[in-house]
Amino acid sequence: MAIKKALGIDIGGTKILYSVLDANGNILSEIKKRPTPKSAEEIISVLKSIIEEYYDEIDVIGLSSAGAVNLENTMVLSSTPNLPKGYNSIDFSMLSDKKVFVENDANCAVWAEYKSGAAKGYNTVLMATIGTGIGGGLVYNGQLFRGSTGNALEVGSMKIFADKRQKCTCGRYDCWESYASGTGLKNCAKIGALSYPEFKTSMLKDKKPEEITTYDITDGVEKGDAFCQKTFEQWQEYMFVGLVSLTDIFNPDCIVISGGMCEFVDIENLQTKINNESVVTSVTVKLAQTKNNAGMIGAGLLALQ
Amino acid sequence: MAIKKALGIDIGGTKILYSVLDANGNILSEIKKRPTPKSAEEIISVLKSIIEEYYDEIDVIGLSSAGAVNLENTMVLSSTPNLPKGYNSIDFSMLSDKKVFVENDANCAVWAEYKSGAAKGYNTVLMATIGTGIGGGLVYNGQLFRGSTGNALEVGSMKIFADKRQKCTCGRYDCWESYASGTGLKNCAKIGALSYPEFKTSMLKDKKPEEITTYDITDGVEKGDAFCQKTFEQWQEYMFVGLVSLTDIFNPDCIVISGGMCEFVDIENLQTKINNESVVTSVTVKLAQTKNNAGMIGAGLLALQ
Repeated sequence: MAIKKALGIDIGGTKILYSVLDANGNILSEIKKRPTPKSAEEIISVLKSIIEEYYDEIDVIGLSSAGAVNLENTMVLSSTPNLPKGYNSIDFSMLSDKKVFVENDANCAVWAEYKSGAAKGYNTVLMATIGTGIGGGLVYNGQLFRGSTGNALEVGSMKIFADKRQKCTCGRYDCWESYASGTGLKNCAKIGALSYPEFKTSMLKDKKPEEITTYDITDGVEKGDAFCQKTFEQWQEYMFVGLVSLTDIFNPDCIVISGGMCEFVDIENLQTKINNESVVTSVTVKLAQTKNNAGMIGAGLLALQ
Repeated sequence: MAIKKALGIDIGGTKILYSVLDANGNILSEIKKRPTPKSAEEIISVLKSIIEEYYDEIDVIGLSSAGAVNLENTMVLSSTPNLPKGYNSIDFSMLSDKKVFVENDANCAVWAEYKSGAAKGYNTVLMATIGTGIGGGLVYNGQLFRGSTGNALEVGSMKIFADKRQKCTCGRYDCWESYASGTGLKNCAKIGALSYPEFKTSMLKDKKPEEITTYDITDGVEKGDAFCQKTFEQWQEYMFVGLVSLTDIFNPDCIVISGGMCEFVDIENLQTKINNESVVTSVTVKLAQTKNNAGMIGAGLLALQ
């Protein structure tokens, strides 16, 4: 019997990434990129041409996309500002006579880690993607946890204060992602600059608080700047607070940290702190392995399920 | 074919509750009570005598207990201070030659509501039990969510502040249950008495802040006392903050509120607030229907699965 193959496609805000995969997540063709078009019609036509390119080699097509996907895995119901008008009315199952399966990018990413990455062999896998915001995904007993309508794991919206202390970019208050994401690190710096005495002697002292970037802080930490270190520790504390709550909620045996900010996280220290504080059995914390290919690999693997 | 019947037994801190049930959760025998003995040996002997009493009528035995239950549903690994020494080394499967199934009380309760109570027909059911503390349970796609080792849904331990503001009875800081449980209402009163100007003219003004009870507050709310109303509103706000986070995390289509404090919750208002704030699709909030029989019914129904 021939090995089943999937075409994995990751539809990002700026680029579309794709390649052919097998059921173990092995990448069988060169990973290619195309710019993401600005209209829904053009996205359809680019996807059709990508599928055409590999049509004879593949059995199924898996698509990874931002936004909440319907329970039938055919449409992206709520899209993001990065994706064009009309995107949420595309029926992706019509793209080909072969099976087309679309899933939310965070769900694809946790699936990729569970099937072929850092979380292989674990039972309850929580992924937290720490980037500009914070996204999440969960695999439990060999299945994606999607919630009643496919919207679950909006962990970045969990509130870590209950007194309307800091407004999030979403307009609500005290979302975890406004404290513990890349944006959160900038917020920590802004607040710290106004309250930490270490700012007066910091290498950043001439910057306006609101102009301090995440790079300024991570660079300052490397150079031993006391203000940057204090800010960074506060940021890590906020990340810890959210993760220990999620550990008590899900009782995962593995947490995978991914996203643009994950390289700055002290994984070992985070794991120790979570296990000291949590009321459930201990968890292993790992860095994601599939990196930028997570969406593409996860989408392909899900389509092959 | 004869209808399958279960003996449902709820092992509480002070009493053991039991009756015979069918697979629809119908109670087929008088609900009986026995005091919970003080030693593990006596618990075993009482359970054996209860099983003996109904042995010929039943097919399976379901036990509901506080504590984390192993994945095989035969033992309670971590027990609570309310249950005797040696309790966590009882192998409940040895109680009878018929199938014995033990499950955590919060898991039994959400299962009872899902199969025969307020959450019948829903897909993703979150239960929050608001009593002295806060417990939780979740059913997703027809299955209990237990986490990697059966410890999941420790929602009372979710942190709703990230700055070590209030110590919980568990010794950690800022657990949701230290703000939004019955104990939480007392904490709200204690803090409010020291900070709300309304306390000076309250019917409770002669009480020491730490002596105000939950009854004092709920009684004062009924009598229109401004301090009690303000305290109660703060308590409801804390409950809302935790529930909206859990809604974003689980994307439930139904939340069931149970426990001793649930009668004080304005369910309709809570549902409106959650749906206005949450980033996921809307949820229905309901009061539990199975009440004090939840553990017993859920255990029996799970044993019949």
